Amino acid sequence: MNNPESGNSNLKSMKALVFHGKGAPSLENRPIPAIVDGSDAIVRITTTTICGTDLHILKGDVPTVADGRILGHEGVGIVEEVGSSVSGFHKGDKVLIANITSCGRCHYCKKAMYSHCMLGGWLLGNKIDGTQAEFVRVPFADSGLHLLTPAMDEEAAVMLSCILPTGLECGALNGKVKPGDLVAIVGAGPVGLAALIAVQLYSPAEILMIDLDDYRLSIAHSFGATKFVNSSDGRASERVMELTHGAGVDVAIEAVGLPVTFDICQEIIAPGGRIANVGVHGRSVDLHIEKLWSSNITIATRLVDASTTAMLLKMVVAGRIDAKKLVSHRLKLTEILKAYEIFADAAKQRALKIVLRNACEIENSI
Amino acid sequence: MNNPESGNSNLKSMKALVFHGKGAPSLENRPIPAIVDGSDAIVRITTTTICGTDLHILKGDVPTVADGRILGHEGVGIVEEVGSSVSGFHKGDKVLIANITSCGRCHYCKKAMYSHCMLGGWLLGNKIDGTQAEFVRVPFADSGLHLLTPAMDEEAAVMLSCILPTGLECGALNGKVKPGDLVAIVGAGPVGLAALIAVQLYSPAEILMIDLDDYRLSIAHSFGATKFVNSSDGRASERVMELTHGAGVDVAIEAVGLPVTFDICQEIIAPGGRIANVGVHGRSVDLHIEKLWSSNITIATRLVDASTTAMLLKMVVAGRIDAKKLVSHRLKLTEILKAYEIFADAAKQRALKIVLRNACEIENSI
Amino acid sequence: MNNPESGNSNLKSMKALVFHGKGAPSLENRPIPAIVDGSDAIVRITTTTICGTDLHILKGDVPTVADGRILGHEGVGIVEEVGSSVSGFHKGDKVLIANITSCGRCHYCKKAMYSHCMLGGWLLGNKIDGTQAEFVRVPFADSGLHLLTPAMDEEAAVMLSCILPTGLECGALNGKVKPGDLVAIVGAGPVGLAALIAVQLYSPAEILMIDLDDYRLSIAHSFGATKFVNSSDGRASERVMELTHGAGVDVAIEAVGLPVTFDICQEIIAPGGRIANVGVHGRSVDLHIEKLWSSNITIATRLVDASTTAMLLKMVVAGRIDAKKLVSHRLKLTEILKAYEIFADAAKQRALKIVLRNACEIENSI
Amino acid sequence: MNNPESGNSNLKSMKALVFHGKGAPSLENRPIPAIVDGSDAIVRITTTTICGTDLHILKGDVPTVADGRILGHEGVGIVEEVGSSVSGFHKGDKVLIANITSCGRCHYCKKAMYSHCMLGGWLLGNKIDGTQAEFVRVPFADSGLHLLTPAMDEEAAVMLSCILPTGLECGALNGKVKPGDLVAIVGAGPVGLAALIAVQLYSPAEILMIDLDDYRLSIAHSFGATKFVNSSDGRASERVMELTHGAGVDVAIEAVGLPVTFDICQEIIAPGGRIANVGVHGRSVDLHIEKLWSSNITIATRLVDASTTAMLLKMVVAGRIDAKKLVSHRLKLTEILKAYEIFADAAKQRALKIVLRNACEIENSI
Repeated sequence: MNNPESGNSNLKSMKALVFHGKGAPSLENRPIPAIVDGSDAIVRITTTTICGTDLHILKGDVPTVADGRILGHEGVGIVEEVGSSVSGFHKGDKVLIANITSCGRCHYCKKAMYSHCMLGGWLLGNKIDGTQAEFVRVPFADSGLHLLTPAMDEEAAVMLSCILPTGLECGALNGKVKPGDLVAIVGAGPVGLAALIAVQLYSPAEILMIDLDDYRLSIAHSFGATKFVNSSDGRASERVMELTHGAGVDVAIEAVGLPVTFDICQEIIAPGGRIANVGVHGRSVDLHIEKLWSSNITIATRLVDASTTAMLLKMVVAGRIDAKKLVSHRLKLTEILKAYEIFADAAKQRALKIVLRNACEIENSI
Repeated sequence: MNNPESGNSNLKSMKALVFHGKGAPSLENRPIPAIVDGSDAIVRITTTTICGTDLHILKGDVPTVADGRILGHEGVGIVEEVGSSVSGFHKGDKVLIANITSCGRCHYCKKAMYSHCMLGGWLLGNKIDGTQAEFVRVPFADSGLHLLTPAMDEEAAVMLSCILPTGLECGALNGKVKPGDLVAIVGAGPVGLAALIAVQLYSPAEILMIDLDDYRLSIAHSFGATKFVNSSDGRASERVMELTHGAGVDVAIEAVGLPVTFDICQEIIAPGGRIANVGVHGRSVDLHIEKLWSSNITIATRLVDASTTAMLLKMVVAGRIDAKKLVSHRLKLTEILKAYEIFADAAKQRALKIVLRNACEIENSI
Repeated sequence: MNNPESGNSNLKSMKALVFHGKGAPSLENRPIPAIVDGSDAIVRITTTTICGTDLHILKGDVPTVADGRILGHEGVGIVEEVGSSVSGFHKGDKVLIANITSCGRCHYCKKAMYSHCMLGGWLLGNKIDGTQAEFVRVPFADSGLHLLTPAMDEEAAVMLSCILPTGLECGALNGKVKPGDLVAIVGAGPVGLAALIAVQLYSPAEILMIDLDDYRLSIAHSFGATKFVNSSDGRASERVMELTHGAGVDVAIEAVGLPVTFDICQEIIAPGGRIANVGVHGRSVDLHIEKLWSSNITIATRLVDASTTAMLLKMVVAGRIDAKKLVSHRLKLTEILKAYEIFADAAKQRALKIVLRNACEIENSI
Repeated sequence: MNNPESGNSNLKSMKALVFHGKGAPSLENRPIPAIVDGSDAIVRITTTTICGTDLHILKGDVPTVADGRILGHEGVGIVEEVGSSVSGFHKGDKVLIANITSCGRCHYCKKAMYSHCMLGGWLLGNKIDGTQAEFVRVPFADSGLHLLTPAMDEEAAVMLSCILPTGLECGALNGKVKPGDLVAIVGAGPVGLAALIAVQLYSPAEILMIDLDDYRLSIAHSFGATKFVNSSDGRASERVMELTHGAGVDVAIEAVGLPVTFDICQEIIAPGGRIANVGVHGRSVDLHIEKLWSSNITIATRLVDASTTAMLLKMVVAGRIDAKKLVSHRLKLTEILKAYEIFADAAKQRALKIVLRNACEIENSI
């Protein structure tokens, strides 16, 4: 095992991926963060990854991210130091970092809507420095960290920081998937595939995957989807209605974030069905309420709350979810600029999640 | 009491309100309906009323209604005859007629989604002849009728045929109203007021009513609303946000059916809130998913299922709901053309529900 | 394929398993049933099976079963004739018979509590003649039958008449099993194993099986259970608490019907947990409410409603549930007395479900 | 208004009601508590009250309460001092103290099961010193306190510390009361009456109150119950079945804590019904599962979590709940021994809740 003690004391600064407005980020030296509040922990990152939302940030779509911000809201690492009021974690603990920060006491936290926590929410890599660095400061550590055993697979664990809770909470739970359902997922990119893994916890009879890319559909097949529609001819809705003998689907999960994919969802939803929106949308969509007003349907949106992370961790530990299969590429943290390039061209590069390991960590673990 | 026996045998034909395409309906003589199927009942109508949806039909908005159709899907009456397989009702029973017909056995009925019953749904006054007549044939009578005591107030009962279940199911239930909630209802017409009565079953802390008309807002006040916004200046959303100190509302009920009123709902909904659509919409609306994708909100639509009629009847009988206060005008069935005129001009005429009593019935009951 | 036409016309009587009070039943010739009510169907049984409840009847535990009653409430067959008001089935249809009869219109049916239907409930093999015969009359056929494709495996299908809905409704649903849960099932007999199959639809992290018999525990292992306690030393509760590090279980399913097994459930249930009772109990149990009053637990009972049969059928057809693995023995209907002997000694005989096929059916199908 | 500053600095000790094992408590001088942990607040009590559970403690029924413990878990007061990590409250704030202490971060807190918080739960007046004193230390103040406006009625507020959340959470919520239900409450003592107030938030059609004492039944009448059974003749269950025409009740709330009252609940519960246990039980009860196994019923227990306190406060502030009507007697804190005598003889003394005001507070407020 590595020696976090010496590792830390030797370092005056750390490598970090820094946002500088719309366009390419840079890999820079930045000071190692310190405890600011008694509820903080400092975590040495051993594994991190890139989220689709990070690409949105680089496109300038997320105005809350300031110039100079260290990006990243996913990570696994080792606790380096804890604040005075942290009771559940200690130096040396291996931990999973949730993407959402929660005080645990405001009225949103009391209804498990941590994404809207009045003191937290989505802070990391957004309103405060994030995890695409060698160290990160995690506020409200007792809520935001999850203890891992030393033997826990880090690649599996880092899938629980954001992508699997997103697929589960925004997709499966918002879609109220239940045994016997016919579920369609529009978009077989990383988050659509995460939704595909998540919905299987609720035992749908059939899962219909819709995407432009046959390779991604083949991945969906290996992940458990049972029916497939390539939407590149613009006739996905027709095809779904044929496949369902005109009945439509019980649940439609939008995992892209475009008007055209939202439209597919409204066109294929059966009476009594649920549309769950996972995609991040940049503009409004045309809701066909003149047709849907009498269809007894529900449309649900959600920013992931990471309220299911502990449960997902139990399932991964019990061997019931193979989270690691979402990982397509593995690089060093120092190669993160290359990783961004690959991820920005994900369909062509056949990339799902790209795992980044801290280089010194890798050396230490040899 | 009247003598249904003689009443029926003397009549060869009956008065009925008949649709003849877009425009005014006519009051005509029509043959008294007979049993067609073993599950049918023939009911002599003693009280009926007009629904906002009937006005939509007259505007030509409901293509399923054919020329020559007798309108009306609300009614109270006396069972005149039952088919061979009807077990729960007998000649002479006083009954409430549900607006929705359900076979009780298809997969939609098995999930209480009667509005989409594969053999039923909204038939009366739409696909088969309705209740704005002296007699009506009710299919699947065991499901579609509710037994009333002879003493039951007919005006209260007829409010349970359509308007109160609509306010409850499409408004309160779809809005998942719960104790302590702040609920906004957009539109204080009859169905908005029905929603106002219904949401109070779930004990919101505050009910904010939004309408263009101060008289209707004053009615809402007398019905239990606690805050009021006159939306005629086009600034309703701003006013609601001020009244809620920027928090927005937990539940927004759309009870009009226009893009502008749907917009108010999306503008005032708090994170975690529910938009329940009650209005019948003629065109699509612009859904601001670029803002709502991260708000953890739900939008729910529904055609009333009349699945709550039996419960509402218990509440009216127990004196817990004063359904009768929705009645603003009382006329004879033979005056139904005049009733339609008043109802078409409801805001100005200060009309809520207009109750129509069968004339001979009135004489008989003297 | 067989020729039901000639089959029926040639037969004046049929073989049937008849109850004659406490003790052994007899295999007798009985008249073939005829349509009594318009909602009836006559079904020629091709496959049936024996339920644990049938053994209870033979012990004299079920006072509603009269002398002379044909037993059995599970079956697959071919529709021979339908009553005048049956709309969903026709002569020649291959069908699954639900154990519960439901009118679909009473207030219990309207809340999907078919087991308490005011005109139905558990009738077959209880209050009217049942399915352990060559023919059976099924009341309310539109509700009580499920259409099968000609190719449908009959052994898998007959597991959906009673045992799998029981395991699902009384076990998994009443236990509110959810992803990540730790579930204990007390009793690895047929119904406990059915519960084991059913709970997996809701993705528990671990399933702990408790039984006296190591063979049955080994079957549970092959069916997906992950932890095992042999309770023959009377220390099952201690063992469970050790295995759970003192935490207890989220869900405890009682699948035996004895005070001692109910006790295990109350001893191992964690705060916030749910006890689901599947077992048929002959006497009261001592509820330790002096300990449980503050534990935020729920105890739920249920007579199976067969409300999940259609869903289970979809899952079997989709290949998501392997219902057939519950079948341990296959005999001819004419060998049913021998089958009862085996089933009455199930643990020793290593019997789970014993499938009985109609002999002439077997010949015909050759 | 009073001057808390000077009040505190002048005091070296405070009056407190102290437990000394089974038997009468004593009113003693004790040191004023100080901040121990950064999450603590010190609250100067202005209003407190006595709970039925306090009587259980004095009978020696609650082994967790040590000799020397200051009793009381209900209170309203003024924040005197806060620990370093308290962010939501400041010196001088008027606050309501919840009976349950919650860290907000453990896995029980994350499912709102605060009563089983791994660092909290029921601490006040149990495992740490309580509120029947002039000052109290409240751990995890950000979770355990609720801000009141200076104008808030303290008698109404102190009913939200324990009794109303108990009636709501253990009674109404565990009973899943819904519109149209027939609810029976067994026991019209303070907590039964609190349940009576609480269930009305969910609009039952009828509320049937059962008690030995006609005066208490008359109070129940004034609080909104609609039917009444005096159980002193031991035939309460028969009477309820007569009143319900043999149907039984949808919800039975046990608000006493004795086998005989639990028995009434099991005897009167309708198929599909829910038994909610509110009473604190000292011994086991005989559960008639030989009858109930097939009744589709639920029995639920719960230690109050105070998870509804914020909602109840909104309802009291909005004027929707009249919490104050539970107060029957008003004394000074220095008269608490007399208050205990009255409360221990509550039925005869016609006592509901006895409010105790801090004497100096009373003087100051004159």
